[in-house]
Amino acid sequence: MADTGQDVQRLAVLGSGSWGTTFAKVLADAGREVTMWARREEVAREIRERRSNEGYLPGVRLPELLTATADPARALAGAEAVVLAVPSQRLRANLTGWRGLLPGNVPLISLAKGVELGTRKRMSEVIAEVAGIPPEQVVVVSGPNLAREIAQEQPAAAVLACTDHDRAVAVQRACSTAYFRPYTNTDVIGCELGGACKNVIALSCGMAAGMGFGTNTVATLITRGLAEMARLGAKLGADQLTFAGLAGVGDLVATCSSPLSRNRTFGERLGRGETVEQAQRAGGGQVAEGVMSCSSIRELAATVGADVPITDAMYRVCHEGMDPAHVGAELLGRKRKHEWS
Amino acid sequence: MADTGQDVQRLAVLGSGSWGTTFAKVLADAGREVTMWARREEVAREIRERRSNEGYLPGVRLPELLTATADPARALAGAEAVVLAVPSQRLRANLTGWRGLLPGNVPLISLAKGVELGTRKRMSEVIAEVAGIPPEQVVVVSGPNLAREIAQEQPAAAVLACTDHDRAVAVQRACSTAYFRPYTNTDVIGCELGGACKNVIALSCGMAAGMGFGTNTVATLITRGLAEMARLGAKLGADQLTFAGLAGVGDLVATCSSPLSRNRTFGERLGRGETVEQAQRAGGGQVAEGVMSCSSIRELAATVGADVPITDAMYRVCHEGMDPAHVGAELLGRKRKHEWS
Repeated sequence: MADTGQDVQRLAVLGSGSWGTTFAKVLADAGREVTMWARREEVAREIRERRSNEGYLPGVRLPELLTATADPARALAGAEAVVLAVPSQRLRANLTGWRGLLPGNVPLISLAKGVELGTRKRMSEVIAEVAGIPPEQVVVVSGPNLAREIAQEQPAAAVLACTDHDRAVAVQRACSTAYFRPYTNTDVIGCELGGACKNVIALSCGMAAGMGFGTNTVATLITRGLAEMARLGAKLGADQLTFAGLAGVGDLVATCSSPLSRNRTFGERLGRGETVEQAQRAGGGQVAEGVMSCSSIRELAATVGADVPITDAMYRVCHEGMDPAHVGAELLGRKRKHEWS
Repeated sequence: MADTGQDVQRLAVLGSGSWGTTFAKVLADAGREVTMWARREEVAREIRERRSNEGYLPGVRLPELLTATADPARALAGAEAVVLAVPSQRLRANLTGWRGLLPGNVPLISLAKGVELGTRKRMSEVIAEVAGIPPEQVVVVSGPNLAREIAQEQPAAAVLACTDHDRAVAVQRACSTAYFRPYTNTDVIGCELGGACKNVIALSCGMAAGMGFGTNTVATLITRGLAEMARLGAKLGADQLTFAGLAGVGDLVATCSSPLSRNRTFGERLGRGETVEQAQRAGGGQVAEGVMSCSSIRELAATVGADVPITDAMYRVCHEGMDPAHVGAELLGRKRKHEWS
């Protein structure tokens, strides 16, 4: 068996969105050599020559140890670890294209949060399947990590989940800086479910806020949303403790309470009466991750018989055109006498 | 044994602050006859004659079934349940004065959140001791309940904790309205600890925000704060599930994220460099509950050997004059490799 705990000095980051670029900066600030891949050559050139990625991280200066290319083969050459920083529903297609270029037996580090539509697979499952590697070679990054704040070097904690603890520790060393503190965790299932479900709950919190509801309602949705993801996790073999931690309540609270969260903002538009299409146009053509995740999480919950009323409600608003006021009343009207019955 | 589940039609609410007045309104909106006690006759007269309590709930019209008096004997005459709505550190003195007036074998309902200085007792323990009643006669109200939003009839969920389930159900019937949904719970210890500890964590979140930290840091403090209260609860016999619910994460998130929270606002002033005395003056002479609670919770944690680093940090800032920047660096610098080690 290979020494999975060996030090990682040179990394490829595939994807140049705000979180990918921020994580590349963290790695470079931790003294690692980083080559980013950007789909568009002009973004790669901007990162390489002007040390900035204004489209995604305005005002942030990128470190010297970070370079970029639009050629995935050049980004991957000599990489001792590969960071996958593309949107979750595009991960399979992208990774399929890169398969022949991936170095052997290196950690593949997933920044994507979601459950794949159709297959209902978590991102680490998609990665292991497409790359043809064992699950213990995949490391998942999660936690309360709004990219812009980390890019500004505000202190943040994160979780690195991998069933192979030594491998998580090697990645932990590669991305520890004064402002970024990663903790290891072996519960990959729980960390990934937390990261996927929180986008749907953030969508619902935004919707409630857009309908004029205040802090009590949002806090109640966060609480019931946490219970919902923990119920689903229990059926899928996750450790319940994970949901009480940084990748559960931490990520959920950050995403639901930040005005920077795309899911929250998208939900606010729905709550104010916009359609998914209107909200999408207003968001520059992008649909929030939670809009897609509510479909795949709902399917996943159905396969194991888990009760996910908030996800169901968001599915009906986003995909069946139901009025937010109607599902809101339905959620509030659910009969419950004892808190946990 | 008395029938503890009998219907409650007439209630006294002792205290006329924002939460006491709001809860009195909820009871009256649920069709109950309510008499409030206010310390000052002019507040009682305003409630009685003008159906308002502008000092605490500006713009809120109080219902017809609610009246008020400055005479505790009149408020308590014929009451089938008594709501205690005075600040936690004044509860013992107030209740001692009312002891001879309390009707026998009726539920005493506690709205106070805190741990008594000196005795380190939870509010329900203080009530049972001073009133000379068994613990199962005390019902604790908790949850994500910012008074002003409930007074505006925004939907909110709450927890009614009582070791006697039937008694909790009787109170539940008395305070259920279209906008206020109380759930029952038998874990009084957990609900009270959640309510007490959240004020200290909200103080720390405010302090971080006042120092310029963003959402990631606040979400991390909430997560670690939840772990801290659950650790303390485990040592004191609380049910861990309670901390994942409305009286745990729900109340914590509402208090930490609301601009209406006194503890959060007080903490922000400390984070901006004000002293406790300056923040107190700016807050109209009142010290935030968390400033007192951090002392009593720290003492309580010491008696059972629970590790409460955030509470310790807030104690040192509030009572030993330590610089917020110093304790912040200390909290961030704590050595942790695995999230739960």
